[in-house]
Amino acid sequence: MKNTLSAAVLLIGNELLSGSIEDKNLAHIAKTLEVRGIRVRETRIVPDIESEIVDAVNHLRNKYDYLFTTGGIGPTHDDITSDSIAAAFGVSNVIQQDVFDGINTYLSSKGVEFTPAAQRMAYAPQGAEIIYSDQSIVPGYRIDNVFVMAGVPRIMRLMLSGIIAHLKTGLSIQNAAIHANVGENEIAAALETIQHQHPDIDIGSYPQDKDSTISDYRVVFVVKGTDTDEIEQTCTEILKACMDGGHEAIRA
Amino acid sequence: MKNTLSAAVLLIGNELLSGSIEDKNLAHIAKTLEVRGIRVRETRIVPDIESEIVDAVNHLRNKYDYLFTTGGIGPTHDDITSDSIAAAFGVSNVIQQDVFDGINTYLSSKGVEFTPAAQRMAYAPQGAEIIYSDQSIVPGYRIDNVFVMAGVPRIMRLMLSGIIAHLKTGLSIQNAAIHANVGENEIAAALETIQHQHPDIDIGSYPQDKDSTISDYRVVFVVKGTDTDEIEQTCTEILKACMDGGHEAIRA
Repeated sequence: MKNTLSAAVLLIGNELLSGSIEDKNLAHIAKTLEVRGIRVRETRIVPDIESEIVDAVNHLRNKYDYLFTTGGIGPTHDDITSDSIAAAFGVSNVIQQDVFDGINTYLSSKGVEFTPAAQRMAYAPQGAEIIYSDQSIVPGYRIDNVFVMAGVPRIMRLMLSGIIAHLKTGLSIQNAAIHANVGENEIAAALETIQHQHPDIDIGSYPQDKDSTISDYRVVFVVKGTDTDEIEQTCTEILKACMDGGHEAIRA
Repeated sequence: MKNTLSAAVLLIGNELLSGSIEDKNLAHIAKTLEVRGIRVRETRIVPDIESEIVDAVNHLRNKYDYLFTTGGIGPTHDDITSDSIAAAFGVSNVIQQDVFDGINTYLSSKGVEFTPAAQRMAYAPQGAEIIYSDQSIVPGYRIDNVFVMAGVPRIMRLMLSGIIAHLKTGLSIQNAAIHANVGENEIAAALETIQHQHPDIDIGSYPQDKDSTISDYRVVFVVKGTDTDEIEQTCTEILKACMDGGHEAIRA
């Protein structure tokens, strides 16, 4: 898509791979970035193993404009993201005195001990830029084109809101949707023709289960692009293709 | 973890990367495999771009015992999984006559035309073994250690149920959980000691938001392994560590 930037997301944590916890962060990150003209082009989920994190970070940060990570920055033994990011960049993981002081002050005010384990949360790779956000004591950080965030969704969202201002943006990506009572097999040929006529537009076709919470119609077409006129034109063509075949279709 | 097999999951589709749709398949696949001693060790989400799918398939099928893919096997222009899997293996994507006949019979009985687009669903890479499952007209398939499934969750589950019998299994991985009202920073040191004493056990520590649907407690510890006695022993030690610190904790 013209004049957009690319991003990857790296979700770190055994719990996501084992199905103990379903990721709630990717969709929020993707939508937040998309309106700013940054498209998520790849996502990986890796376990809490340093070599796996290092390999993924180095591959993804070189391939895409931005890399966003979530998870593994808490105080427990399986929180190894900052050590791993430091290793990926070949630098040390060092104490960030301002962050240390901030957490220390906060915990003291609550009467909670600032344990050596908790102090690990005040570390970040040498050269990292700490990024504070409203309401979050533990900040995220940036090193080069890599942004490191928490895994807990509420905290991740706070961190991302603080990160947004640090990003270059592209042309905002807009969405439109058409819901239709048509079998994908009946409309596929027309859809392919329309897609070929609009190479800068992304047309997705998503059949719905009977118990879908997204639509009562059999299929949803999602139309994405940076040019509003071309999105409208594409939608009109899809609606016409459905109706020409005698199928009910609406712009949703 | 001793006597277990490894797997990767490749989720294919622009809609997952853009946040239009949240994946509902990974957790089900992971849990289904885990009780059969197969651990998901990596997951990737890639867009509907052949070169991206080919690279991911070739990397993951060589690194892990099994690779499971979801998505991209429908009739529309963005359904390019079978073409891509064939390219990854360096073979042709060829018609599977039995599958073709089955879909044709089904659609005829419904009075629906079997369009050229729909006929693409009857293709699979040369050498693939078609895997039928109850109630699903379109089957999944296997080629070498790669299993290809639909993206729609209901259909994916049917396909996976048919695939299970084709898998070698390892020692079943069991789970236990402890819920505790303790800050992670207060328990992290004890938890690390316990983890080091049980290297074949995976201990995860997951802080809960106030609106968590998983637990009313502040943190959930998940204990995984293949040896029931060692899981029990580990749980007992975690409970003791919490209680010794004066923190409420229960075996959930």
